[in-house]
Amino acid sequence: MAKFVLEVWLFAPFICPFMQVDAKLSLLRAEMSKAGVDAVIVANTDPHNNEYVADRWRGRQWLTDMKGSNGTAVVTADWCGLWTDSRYYEIAEDAIAGTEIELMRMSDIGAITVEGWLKDHLAQGSTVSFNGAETALKQAESWIKSFELSGFKVNAGLDLINIIWNDRPEPPKGELFIVDDEYAGQTIEDKISTLRGEMEKSKVDAYLLGRTDESCWLLNFRGTDIDISPTAYCWTLVTPEQVLFFVDAEKLTAEATAKFEAAGVTIHGYEDVEASLNALDASARVLLVPDYISHRLAEAAGHCTVVDDRPIVTDLKAAKNETEIKHTKQALIDDGAALVKFYTWLYARLDKGEPVTELSASRKLDECRAEFSGFRHPSFESIMGFGPDGALNHYSVDEESDKPVQPDDIFLIDSGGNFVHGATDTTRTIPIGKPTQKQKEDYTLVLSSMLELLMLEFAEGANGAQLDGICRQALWRNGRNFKHSTGHGIGFGLEVHEGPQGFSAVNKEPIKLGMLTTIEPGCYRPGEHGVRIENIVHTVLSRETEFGRFFKFENLTFCPINTDLIDPSFLPAHQIEWLNSYHEEVLEKLSPLLNEDERSWLEHECRPLTVS
Amino acid sequence: MAKFVLEVWLFAPFICPFMQVDAKLSLLRAEMSKAGVDAVIVANTDPHNNEYVADRWRGRQWLTDMKGSNGTAVVTADWCGLWTDSRYYEIAEDAIAGTEIELMRMSDIGAITVEGWLKDHLAQGSTVSFNGAETALKQAESWIKSFELSGFKVNAGLDLINIIWNDRPEPPKGELFIVDDEYAGQTIEDKISTLRGEMEKSKVDAYLLGRTDESCWLLNFRGTDIDISPTAYCWTLVTPEQVLFFVDAEKLTAEATAKFEAAGVTIHGYEDVEASLNALDASARVLLVPDYISHRLAEAAGHCTVVDDRPIVTDLKAAKNETEIKHTKQALIDDGAALVKFYTWLYARLDKGEPVTELSASRKLDECRAEFSGFRHPSFESIMGFGPDGALNHYSVDEESDKPVQPDDIFLIDSGGNFVHGATDTTRTIPIGKPTQKQKEDYTLVLSSMLELLMLEFAEGANGAQLDGICRQALWRNGRNFKHSTGHGIGFGLEVHEGPQGFSAVNKEPIKLGMLTTIEPGCYRPGEHGVRIENIVHTVLSRETEFGRFFKFENLTFCPINTDLIDPSFLPAHQIEWLNSYHEEVLEKLSPLLNEDERSWLEHECRPLTVS
Repeated sequence: MAKFVLEVWLFAPFICPFMQVDAKLSLLRAEMSKAGVDAVIVANTDPHNNEYVADRWRGRQWLTDMKGSNGTAVVTADWCGLWTDSRYYEIAEDAIAGTEIELMRMSDIGAITVEGWLKDHLAQGSTVSFNGAETALKQAESWIKSFELSGFKVNAGLDLINIIWNDRPEPPKGELFIVDDEYAGQTIEDKISTLRGEMEKSKVDAYLLGRTDESCWLLNFRGTDIDISPTAYCWTLVTPEQVLFFVDAEKLTAEATAKFEAAGVTIHGYEDVEASLNALDASARVLLVPDYISHRLAEAAGHCTVVDDRPIVTDLKAAKNETEIKHTKQALIDDGAALVKFYTWLYARLDKGEPVTELSASRKLDECRAEFSGFRHPSFESIMGFGPDGALNHYSVDEESDKPVQPDDIFLIDSGGNFVHGATDTTRTIPIGKPTQKQKEDYTLVLSSMLELLMLEFAEGANGAQLDGICRQALWRNGRNFKHSTGHGIGFGLEVHEGPQGFSAVNKEPIKLGMLTTIEPGCYRPGEHGVRIENIVHTVLSRETEFGRFFKFENLTFCPINTDLIDPSFLPAHQIEWLNSYHEEVLEKLSPLLNEDERSWLEHECRPLTVS
Repeated sequence: MAKFVLEVWLFAPFICPFMQVDAKLSLLRAEMSKAGVDAVIVANTDPHNNEYVADRWRGRQWLTDMKGSNGTAVVTADWCGLWTDSRYYEIAEDAIAGTEIELMRMSDIGAITVEGWLKDHLAQGSTVSFNGAETALKQAESWIKSFELSGFKVNAGLDLINIIWNDRPEPPKGELFIVDDEYAGQTIEDKISTLRGEMEKSKVDAYLLGRTDESCWLLNFRGTDIDISPTAYCWTLVTPEQVLFFVDAEKLTAEATAKFEAAGVTIHGYEDVEASLNALDASARVLLVPDYISHRLAEAAGHCTVVDDRPIVTDLKAAKNETEIKHTKQALIDDGAALVKFYTWLYARLDKGEPVTELSASRKLDECRAEFSGFRHPSFESIMGFGPDGALNHYSVDEESDKPVQPDDIFLIDSGGNFVHGATDTTRTIPIGKPTQKQKEDYTLVLSSMLELLMLEFAEGANGAQLDGICRQALWRNGRNFKHSTGHGIGFGLEVHEGPQGFSAVNKEPIKLGMLTTIEPGCYRPGEHGVRIENIVHTVLSRETEFGRFFKFENLTFCPINTDLIDPSFLPAHQIEWLNSYHEEVLEKLSPLLNEDERSWLEHECRPLTVS
């Protein structure tokens, strides 16, 4: 899925459903006044700067009622602003309607930043506060520098929301499970040894793994703290002699404990990490990645030499090993078959005139995935955007927003499964009834954009920004564009958005061998429709010449790409040829997993397009 | 020209021609020992971090004998390394042959950095030194942070080279001249007023213009301190009430002094800038751009609040005004005519069997440009790379390297003129005799790459990295690449390399309306030949749709692009069509400036290619 849209709202009814936004703001202002704070910044961030956060750390959501994953509230004595990006403009407007909160549209050209607004509106000498325990060091340092330059004092040690949030959820206690070596492709011991080798090269004496998926990768486990995230709240501190794993004991099975102990890993309480950092020898060089750890933990290690270098584990896990690639390929074939089962069901119901809604379709899709062994949970909440809903990048269907699926419009479906043997993420846009010419043109240009990048050969060292531009050409040439990034890295049975690489205007990371990345351009017309098409690709060697090594992408996603929506006059012949041979491969790989009806539907979908 | 190759070596014979490198290293080590320094870093940087530096600030060149513009020497008690990029590998090898200096190839994948090498080889507690008065704040801060993390002490207050460099050149004293308002398109008073408006928006009380071209732009003058740079050593400090111009009085004509005084600008000695920064009120918010000012001057303002924000003047001057664009267009037509005169001369001589060398061609080219009114000096030293010399990106012909131009090979010519009415920079690669098929393929793919970007339509906000990738596709598809950036901003009668924008893998600056940028992909085969083709483009509005504004490039360079080197099977039909209409325009614009022979040669060069 595009890098957005990650809502878990299952627990919403339990999060103080009765207190009104304005009442919460009044309580907060009373606390601000007591603490001598003139402005407080409230975000939905946890102590790991994870993308998917448990309800406990959704303070901004609780305060403003806005469910979007990206949003920052700023509260002063007489004003409250909510910064969010274009994906959430509409739901933010709905959420804050009738409250005093002002929507700050951060995707707009020339938009004012949080820092800029405060500089313009707060008196010199004012105090700005945020919770350093739940703010990434990088963000905290940037705020502190900016606020101090504006002549403000900064208090990063207050958790004012916690005081007024009296039914704040406890940290989750989901059980861990071990990933067998046959799936991981590398034992815990091997990974620790590789990591220590890298630490030695960087002259690092201690390394705190801040993002929770880093610990999952290193120690070959997955978690169940959050419904759609395979990680668990934990930290790992690695030194040349020790591996300290900080996690609530309740989460550990006997199997996990045994496996960790056998690998020389010692278990400590989740909260003990701070004391362990405090206890490090002052001569130690400690690697803390500023985007992955909190300002507060950085302070705990402040007596050491803090090295803010690259995240070694993130780099190691980004280049997948052969076993991980082999399993991910199977996961994507299973997932493709699940999608075909879903589409067959969908079109059969519609043919029979039986009702289908976005929500019922979403539930059916979950069922289709659950038929496959190894499936654990969706990679993220499915985006089922019919008609105008497809233009809402953030769209998350619920009982309230649910709409019938019926002719004539197009249906954007972005979903994925988290399997033991790999994470998937596939978007298709399909016609329900007869599409318009405008829909066909948008669709064909998006497809052409995706194929432009998917079929690219590029020099080693080329980065995400360079490749992002290449993907957009077909759309730009036709006066179209999309505002989200073009693609993201994806974990092996881990987070659906995984760094460091990605296709976006600002991603300077080179695309390396073994990386898995999505390609997912789109085209959205608010109030009308949305198109997005997404496949996952694997970077492989193409050739070596006297100019160096050249890479290309191996396509790993096998799911038919609808051809009724194609206007062939907008698709170059070499792309039509690619599409035809892709569909041959889809048919070959998925057919064995399908029943007769499904195979028959798939055969029709995979019929070749004529090259003009 | 590509962003490299900027050698002025005219004064070389006067720079201590007799002392050997090893003797200099011995002297330096004696001073290091006296000062208690274990490693010293020596670069060719001036107090402004200018790209073109006067001989006075070529300490690394003096120490190592390596003439390339990019290079950093590191000297310890028993080792000396010279870091340089791939353009200078060969000349660096030649320069240091027989000395103890080790070449550190910084363009190689996995190359060790200066910081990395010192971390690996110096004992903890060692002292590393560099001259903070001639090191940009940004570089200095990065070094200091890194060295302190490695457990080193840092001394940024020593100029050890100065002690041993007994015939070090004095700062230059070139006279300034005023740019008339009819060329500048905006008066000094207007520019100061605009700048103060921007300073107010940024809440800045004082702003030191660190790069010398910033002062040139603001105060509508040009300098003559360096033969191929139109700037002058100076600083400008702007406050809401004052404009202080720091420059040697000898450089000022009566006209310049009068013009400055009329605009409310006060004149001060070049060295007085430090005292003026010291004298700023401690409550002042001072804008110092870390890449544009020295570590030492930042310390002089250290008692104030130092704001390291965007360089306001650089942003203002990057978007050219209509007058500047109008004049630049004329400068590029004049320059195109000068090039045609040169080519006509070149081919006529070769036809008659008269000798031509790279050096004689270079001199003739200077003469051809000098025929045009408003011409002041070359934009940079011409790159005249015949045959294998064309593969040396840095190639700067002199008596020693000079080679005859004769069949059969290709000739890369990258040159430009600094005119009162605009700076130019054009590269063409032309055949002498019969080209090989490999040369034709390289050439055609480079041309196709250039046109891919030149003909692009792109969304507002697209940046240099995204567009860089687009330019490289045709080369990548065919297993080729080039290591330099794809293009750079260019000044209005100012520096030939001007920020902030540029086409490169790491340039995140959006390409904005009014910007002038070069497009100059290349293809180089060491020991064989080099190809580069370069035009200057102007960003203009293409259209506005519901997806926002879209921009395109207006081509400003008019000079025939050789078609004998084209293999049409590598050039798409729409690019051939573009080329044919380009040549019609070249013929129309340049013919009035040519004599009969030249026009006849041009007509032949501009004949249409057949679209297959």
